[in-house]
Amino acid sequence: MNDRLSIVKVGGKVVEEPESLKAFIQDFASIAGQKILVHGGGRSATAIAQQMGFETQMVDGRRITDKNMLDVVVMVYGGLVNKNIVAQLQALNKQAVGLTGADLDCVRAIKRPVNDIDYGYVGDVSSVNSEQLEELVKNGVIPVVAPLTHNGQGQMLNTNADTMAAELAKSFARSFRVQLVYCFEKKGVLENPEDNNSYIPNLNTELYEQHKASGVISEGMIPKLDNGFAALKQGVSEVMITNTDGLKNGFNSGTLLSI
Amino acid sequence: MNDRLSIVKVGGKVVEEPESLKAFIQDFASIAGQKILVHGGGRSATAIAQQMGFETQMVDGRRITDKNMLDVVVMVYGGLVNKNIVAQLQALNKQAVGLTGADLDCVRAIKRPVNDIDYGYVGDVSSVNSEQLEELVKNGVIPVVAPLTHNGQGQMLNTNADTMAAELAKSFARSFRVQLVYCFEKKGVLENPEDNNSYIPNLNTELYEQHKASGVISEGMIPKLDNGFAALKQGVSEVMITNTDGLKNGFNSGTLLSI
Repeated sequence: MNDRLSIVKVGGKVVEEPESLKAFIQDFASIAGQKILVHGGGRSATAIAQQMGFETQMVDGRRITDKNMLDVVVMVYGGLVNKNIVAQLQALNKQAVGLTGADLDCVRAIKRPVNDIDYGYVGDVSSVNSEQLEELVKNGVIPVVAPLTHNGQGQMLNTNADTMAAELAKSFARSFRVQLVYCFEKKGVLENPEDNNSYIPNLNTELYEQHKASGVISEGMIPKLDNGFAALKQGVSEVMITNTDGLKNGFNSGTLLSI
Repeated sequence: MNDRLSIVKVGGKVVEEPESLKAFIQDFASIAGQKILVHGGGRSATAIAQQMGFETQMVDGRRITDKNMLDVVVMVYGGLVNKNIVAQLQALNKQAVGLTGADLDCVRAIKRPVNDIDYGYVGDVSSVNSEQLEELVKNGVIPVVAPLTHNGQGQMLNTNADTMAAELAKSFARSFRVQLVYCFEKKGVLENPEDNNSYIPNLNTELYEQHKASGVISEGMIPKLDNGFAALKQGVSEVMITNTDGLKNGFNSGTLLSI
């Protein structure tokens, strides 16, 4: 039987506030066995862009990434957020290494073609090369992955963190029993966005379609869930959406996806 | 006989201008055998700090690193400069990984004690753990190291790149035949700062003392040379100071140190 590997994506408010990030890192570190962390950092990037005099433009929740904004996200995701997480994991005696898709050539992408909208330096994942990451993971190292890729020709690209986590999960599923966890500030996929306890414990594709049709599941969650269902279809063993508390005690709360 | 390992530190103007950086990376990539790159990035950090509204304060060529400036150097050294170098090496089919001292717990430091001057979040190297880096190097990976360390308690620290390179060289000297190269815009240690061809081909400790006493060797070079001589005394096989051209054709120009 293949080894188990947890790939946890953390984003939203959790990663932006020092106290919640610290609590998350402790809970993440306590997950038994081999693991990978994929992080966001969008709100910090927006704040630093603003401080540098660059305006942030979003379309459908995606960041328009011109040359200046690319520099900002490479700095913030690849440097500030990533290295502070690594340092905090080291403080808990967890051997970690901070990476982008360019490091160890692990995730390549293609600059998104310009159709109606020019997203700029945004990359759609074209290939995952998990060989070197597997070596690290098997040696007890935790890769901490920033949502950045490269095109193989020296260009860094900005890539969605949910997608990055799902792509890594699919690649690792060839040699590991992979659990993919999307961790954010809510307890799971909520039936009522105002009530954090209204999370849907089990979500299959049929129920997902119903909830999309009725508007219960709204825009922000859809790319995450589409990524999650696609990962299940491509060999990932388990996909869960939860908050920091859900990481504790064997993942006993949150929304579990099934196909 | 131990394997040969080249540790090249690049700094100054070379790393700050896209064209000179690109040329450097090509020359660096062409060095035969196992290698590590340590980079600076101080001028970019100063420019971005200014853009964010933070003033840079230097004392004896060292950056005063308050909390805001720490964020800037972690972003710029650990993110922007580091990842762009890694992506460019990948474009030359060189397998590389960008690291700080926190990654793989490879370089720890102690926050510099406050005596006359409070340097803030500046770290003096306390230990180098090159075990994981050696595995990478032996697997053909080029570590690209930013001049940042951590204190083992979750705090990132700003560390001088020349020192970082010398400390790595000393640690690797236990299991490799290490060549340490300081690469910057000048051809070597110059007798006449106005004349780039006036480099001193061989500099031993005696001549160094003479040139310091007469003022031929000036302030900026002294920490670099002190680091270089200390590395030779602690088992590093060869220390050279040169420019990008000096990396080519078997290091046939530049200043070679000897003790």
